[in-house]
Amino acid sequence: MAAQKSAQPAPGKHAPDSARRSEKSRRAIYDAALALVVEAGYPKTTIEGIAARAGVGKQTIYRWWSSKADVLMEAFLDLAERSAPDAGPESYTFPDTGDIAADLKLVLRATVDELRDPRFEAPSRALAAEGVVNEQLGRELVAKLMQPSLDLYITRLRAAQEAGQVRPEIDPRIALEFFVSPLAQRWLQHTGPISYEYTDTLVDYALHGLAPR
Amino acid sequence: MAAQKSAQPAPGKHAPDSARRSEKSRRAIYDAALALVVEAGYPKTTIEGIAARAGVGKQTIYRWWSSKADVLMEAFLDLAERSAPDAGPESYTFPDTGDIAADLKLVLRATVDELRDPRFEAPSRALAAEGVVNEQLGRELVAKLMQPSLDLYITRLRAAQEAGQVRPEIDPRIALEFFVSPLAQRWLQHTGPISYEYTDTLVDYALHGLAPR
Repeated sequence: MAAQKSAQPAPGKHAPDSARRSEKSRRAIYDAALALVVEAGYPKTTIEGIAARAGVGKQTIYRWWSSKADVLMEAFLDLAERSAPDAGPESYTFPDTGDIAADLKLVLRATVDELRDPRFEAPSRALAAEGVVNEQLGRELVAKLMQPSLDLYITRLRAAQEAGQVRPEIDPRIALEFFVSPLAQRWLQHTGPISYEYTDTLVDYALHGLAPR
Repeated sequence: MAAQKSAQPAPGKHAPDSARRSEKSRRAIYDAALALVVEAGYPKTTIEGIAARAGVGKQTIYRWWSSKADVLMEAFLDLAERSAPDAGPESYTFPDTGDIAADLKLVLRATVDELRDPRFEAPSRALAAEGVVNEQLGRELVAKLMQPSLDLYITRLRAAQEAGQVRPEIDPRIALEFFVSPLAQRWLQHTGPISYEYTDTLVDYALHGLAPR
């Protein structure tokens, strides 16, 4: 659920004028797709509806994307990218200061900020809700929007294992869920408030365990 | 997400014949509500639609429930209750054998079984998905369907604190999320497979911590 960044290639190579027009259309399509999924919900969002709202032909959309799921996921990735305008494609990395607790807390605080950002809230919820009942879309959301972040957790936790800060027998893919899943559930299912203090607590509890040492 | 049980009062007090008719109507209404929310989704499920499918008058539904959310949640609780036919209203309790690890593993294995039960899958997903985008419904789902289970975790973790098996400074409301949230996210968002081995691992990691002791 952390800020996902992805180096999405600009669609196609064009001469400057054409590129400007393309960029304008692409932006209009993203805006239309995000607005529609929030207003109408995922099932009622169609390529036709996105095209009409964006003021482009349906074929313009089909030239660049194969489905509404593709358009929406790319629109969402673009939204995440624009929220960190100074950041290049490689900028979203997991910090490694050598202190796993501090690094996890920093990343989770950034995730809290993102989840509270009203620009993300409605489209994120609309896509996540559909993913709950639509397994194929759900799996695409995981692969395209979540997995890149999860992989960064895995890499950082492996480094912490090498540094002796995480036990060697721990499976990082499962361990990362102590950081990601409680926050995701509070946000998705409205099971509790989210705050820096809360995510800091998750990190301390997970690293040190609930049982006495 | 564990099996929730609730002592739902039978609707009203009636003479035997009337009670039999009422029980038959109530069952038909529950079945219709669950079937419709799966087929049409929550937004398109209406009291009128439930009444028509159940073969009862709209007023019959309004006599017993104030909203479609109420009907659905009660239908869902009833489904959970019927799945354990020998169990009385008090039967859903958290085991306390004195071994917190064993008790957590047992409860989570039962939750895995429930999440894999095809009777629960579709209606649970339909309600959960709507709760993601509909905060009011989401909060009702938490209060009526989830909170009773969460309270049992809290009580059991407090007993473990008294027994010296969980550190006294731990907040049980947060700690329980290490058991409940990873499993819920894998199930809701299709982020990974669920199994007994997986939930056993969650319990071991959470109790002993990720960091070396």
